[in-house]
Amino acid sequence: MADQYAQIREDNRPIEIPAIRWDEPPEGPVLVLLDQTRLPAEEVELVCTDASALVEAIRSLAVRGAPLLGIAGAYGVALAAARGFDVDGAAASLAGARPTAVNLSYGVRRAQEAHLAVLRAGGDQEQAAAAALAAARALHKEDAEASGRMAVQGLTLLDELLPGGSHRILTHCNTGALVSGGEGTAFAVALAAHRVGRLRRLWVDETRPLLQGARLTSYEAARAGMAYTLLTDNAAGSLFSAGEVDAVLIGADRIAADGSVANKVGSYPLAVLARYHHVPFIVVAPLTTVDPDTPNGASIEVEQRAGHEVTEITAPLVPVAGVEAGGGIPVAPLGTQAYNPAFDVTPPELVTAIVTEAGVVSPVTAEALAELCDRSRQVTI
Amino acid sequence: MADQYAQIREDNRPIEIPAIRWDEPPEGPVLVLLDQTRLPAEEVELVCTDASALVEAIRSLAVRGAPLLGIAGAYGVALAAARGFDVDGAAASLAGARPTAVNLSYGVRRAQEAHLAVLRAGGDQEQAAAAALAAARALHKEDAEASGRMAVQGLTLLDELLPGGSHRILTHCNTGALVSGGEGTAFAVALAAHRVGRLRRLWVDETRPLLQGARLTSYEAARAGMAYTLLTDNAAGSLFSAGEVDAVLIGADRIAADGSVANKVGSYPLAVLARYHHVPFIVVAPLTTVDPDTPNGASIEVEQRAGHEVTEITAPLVPVAGVEAGGGIPVAPLGTQAYNPAFDVTPPELVTAIVTEAGVVSPVTAEALAELCDRSRQVTI
Repeated sequence: MADQYAQIREDNRPIEIPAIRWDEPPEGPVLVLLDQTRLPAEEVELVCTDASALVEAIRSLAVRGAPLLGIAGAYGVALAAARGFDVDGAAASLAGARPTAVNLSYGVRRAQEAHLAVLRAGGDQEQAAAAALAAARALHKEDAEASGRMAVQGLTLLDELLPGGSHRILTHCNTGALVSGGEGTAFAVALAAHRVGRLRRLWVDETRPLLQGARLTSYEAARAGMAYTLLTDNAAGSLFSAGEVDAVLIGADRIAADGSVANKVGSYPLAVLARYHHVPFIVVAPLTTVDPDTPNGASIEVEQRAGHEVTEITAPLVPVAGVEAGGGIPVAPLGTQAYNPAFDVTPPELVTAIVTEAGVVSPVTAEALAELCDRSRQVTI
Repeated sequence: MADQYAQIREDNRPIEIPAIRWDEPPEGPVLVLLDQTRLPAEEVELVCTDASALVEAIRSLAVRGAPLLGIAGAYGVALAAARGFDVDGAAASLAGARPTAVNLSYGVRRAQEAHLAVLRAGGDQEQAAAAALAAARALHKEDAEASGRMAVQGLTLLDELLPGGSHRILTHCNTGALVSGGEGTAFAVALAAHRVGRLRRLWVDETRPLLQGARLTSYEAARAGMAYTLLTDNAAGSLFSAGEVDAVLIGADRIAADGSVANKVGSYPLAVLARYHHVPFIVVAPLTTVDPDTPNGASIEVEQRAGHEVTEITAPLVPVAGVEAGGGIPVAPLGTQAYNPAFDVTPPELVTAIVTEAGVVSPVTAEALAELCDRSRQVTI
């Protein structure tokens, strides 16, 4: 039975609520999430006391973003273990909560394997739970470090591709601290450019249907003091046409072995526009996003979400007098069917470069990607 | 002083409210509009008693769509004349209400010239007003006829480009009876295909920021019994990529002499996607949309609209308890700037064909377009 409850911060200080944190109040361990469905209007923490509550939070997008989903999955397994629940059942339901983000199943597996290893070595449940939590914490820390390294690699690449001056960067969806143990993926690169005075403008796609760009990227850009401008997704074409975009920077939810990139729906049209206008299209993602078991774009399972996300205006999920929080206001006639894929797939030939914490792949080929993964694995060992 | 009032139909019959109609109740002549900002939730008529009320209705998009704006502009001049107001002042403010749609200034000029011609010939105010109204009615009728001819021309073209079988057509914004004296432009072609059993699917772009696709095209498609599916604008890329689009059909707000097409923002990205995927990109518009005085795309003035259309969710403009009708719910942080062009411009090399009531231009060149306009003018004379 899912047990979630909202915890509204009352101290009213300028917020630095982390996207995810482990807590151990007297009632037992919990996973505390910043509820992203309520941003930017409200900063509310969502407390999960078991894995099914976390599954619900993942499905409702209270917690989202590929790297953060990996961390959440690992903590979710640790939570099940610490509370004495069925760890394998929790792991299975967590891994299946969203099919496209490979990081989620990676994080789940990592904590599950740590847990199992202790049991196999003769450890007790408490020791196994501690190992799962340690695995989650390690992943959390590694992701923060990877984020920092991606920012450095990405900024170096931008300087190579766009020598001199400052950059006008177009981004899609949300890829900052809200999706990461650190400062994010694509957004972290833009932030690094901002900090050295080389970000002229961050163009923020609103990212329908759930408006992660309008709600979350604008929120992060505003807090960081970046020069940013919001646009509807379909206005990006006008910016390209006017020569107002120097580079596109996006994250990824899964990268296939051939370099095909699954990311938030709307990424692929940007890749086609970028190619047509000779603008670099750069994907920034940790190596945990690369899935060697997915050979190519066609084999990536793309999550189809409910039609009401399109036929109703469901964002922001903020209580307004008379409208229930999270309730949608219909915009299309009753009975309207919707096509609502959560992601799309960009083939490698449209991707200028993939930036990871271990290096940059450009041009994007299966060989170059495999080599980078191998090299990184050797360094890790 | 603008005088508008809403008139809710109480007879509850299946609606066939025309998008625009002239009425002469005992209180004096009025122009009655179907308030498109309230669709599909409510069918409310908006009654305009003077030109400034109509200007307001045009700016708020209660009445919209290039051909209908032309008709509205002409009736607006007729209204000013019939009510004894300053006709030239009314004409100037109507023509400037929206800068991109060339049909609006065409309609205004036509009624104004008819009015002036009578005065110059020694007629009195009443006769001049009657002439302005007759000009508006003639334009209304011509537009309905043009719509029917465009549907025939467009269907023939579809059969040539896509021989055999039924078609999956992607459309953007709203181009049906709500924008026309008849059944519209691009939508009229899809409707014609539907009537002969050759429309497999109408893919409807929701068309942010004001959701004309979700609200209006879905409404018209549902009423016509067409097989239609709604999508966010940025999901169109996935459809192209999956080979699910046979042709793109859109309308136009202004066509420059070189064949550049200004249309609702989001049209240009579709043109680029269509080219990349070798899918025909077809523009359907009456000849009144062609503006020989605008030499090329760069000389088309693109209307920039208020940022709150993007930073707030303003559609549907339906009263919900506690939320004022027309009031927006903020989705982005306060102070967020938005880039909000109402239109974009597609260069002629990306347009497969322009379908008009007088014939089809393909390939799209300045010469072919000029020739069609000349030929049509000769026939008219």
